Amino acid sequence: MRQYVLPKYFKGEDILKLNKEDSNYFLKVLRLKINDKILARDMDGNSYQLVIKKSDKNHCICSVIKLNKEDTYETIDDLPSQKKDYPIIHLFQCVCKGKKNEAIIRMATEMGVSSISLVQSKYCIAKKENSNNQRYEKIIKEAIQQSGSSIMTKFDGVIDFKDFIKGINYPLFFFHQQSLDNRNLIKKLENLDSKAEVGILIGPEGGLSENECKILIEKNFTPVTLKTNILRAETASIVAISAIHTLLMEK
Amino acid sequence: MRQYVLPKYFKGEDILKLNKEDSNYFLKVLRLKINDKILARDMDGNSYQLVIKKSDKNHCICSVIKLNKEDTYETIDDLPSQKKDYPIIHLFQCVCKGKKNEAIIRMATEMGVSSISLVQSKYCIAKKENSNNQRYEKIIKEAIQQSGSSIMTKFDGVIDFKDFIKGINYPLFFFHQQSLDNRNLIKKLENLDSKAEVGILIGPEGGLSENECKILIEKNFTPVTLKTNILRAETASIVAISAIHTLLMEK
Repeated sequence: MRQYVLPKYFKGEDILKLNKEDSNYFLKVLRLKINDKILARDMDGNSYQLVIKKSDKNHCICSVIKLNKEDTYETIDDLPSQKKDYPIIHLFQCVCKGKKNEAIIRMATEMGVSSISLVQSKYCIAKKENSNNQRYEKIIKEAIQQSGSSIMTKFDGVIDFKDFIKGINYPLFFFHQQSLDNRNLIKKLENLDSKAEVGILIGPEGGLSENECKILIEKNFTPVTLKTNILRAETASIVAISAIHTLLMEK
Repeated sequence: MRQYVLPKYFKGEDILKLNKEDSNYFLKVLRLKINDKILARDMDGNSYQLVIKKSDKNHCICSVIKLNKEDTYETIDDLPSQKKDYPIIHLFQCVCKGKKNEAIIRMATEMGVSSISLVQSKYCIAKKENSNNQRYEKIIKEAIQQSGSSIMTKFDGVIDFKDFIKGINYPLFFFHQQSLDNRNLIKKLENLDSKAEVGILIGPEGGLSENECKILIEKNFTPVTLKTNILRAETASIVAISAIHTLLMEK
């Protein structure tokens, strides 16, 4: 199911005039025509029925009706989207090189992760300033629209390792290449279900440092070693999210 | 752990002269020097200790000693590679558009899939001839070398949907967007363990047709619907492999 993520300037108006880029998406990518309908969501996850009212080459004007939970709506393509309970997953991804961060953010958003932070840890090869944040937010918007995700993934910027651990009040699993806890992953997740709130920390290409692992264990966070080969950063990230997601959803 | 996949022309000689491309990989990418050691594997999965004996700008000559299972060896970087029982996973991936096939083949090889076939099904948007096979084999070789995978993933070419189902004598799970079997995935895998041989079939961007699903169910293959959003083809593939792999390895 396709859906449209409403722009930040939308404040609940009955009529919405799309900017050039979004008009282009409606008219040229989705090929919507006058009176076509599409589901839209605002940044808080509220749903709206949009109907195309006017369009010219570069602009598109829609009527907007806010939907309540039980309301039916029409939208393009009828592939089912996940509507059941979904875990609240916070992804803490140590900064990787170049385009890898983008690939990880795109896949994590498709999977319905609730929030994504990039973490600057000791062995990060790349240093990231917050200057790419707009680019990451655009990738998240595209991925939500394409995947029909009902979770409005939030990008929480770049933070330092020492700051990220402050104030985490949910179970956090950190993925590490050297086994530090021999229980299997099913055992580690046994008290959690499909509505759980969990954090996932994934090291950079260079791994987490010994001292970082020590700090995480002191905080009672849980080390996880995937029973697989050495994966590239972007593969490792999606495999880790899938492993946790599958075990929470399938029990 | 890095390793080198021996070329097809290697027949067990004591001395190996690398071609220009592989010499370049040794000298410029891995920066190996005279007397450096690296683990190598042939296409049958046998292991060898290579020692760099001579090198000039474009060529590299190594001594080769075949290793028995218990023999120790030296190689570059000491990250642990997966050595335990590993499921035998055959991936049947319906042909996707352009570079997506390459991304899927790379990730599946990293994960240690045993064989990969591309399947031409009804709703495949792209038609693939076997002309890309060399490119795919090169990607597999690179992924095995990088991930230290002990599984020599085999590329089985492009086959037609009607041919792929012939002669499969192991459980096969096909991933489909409309739920056809409500048991959860743990239940579906309950008779299988970490040494199991299984097939995974993943539809193309357009999904599997109703008739294809009917044929698969008649063959007693098992439909699986992932409890997640609509994923792009390359994400869906790695998430499906991860889900099966995690549940087989973690029990």
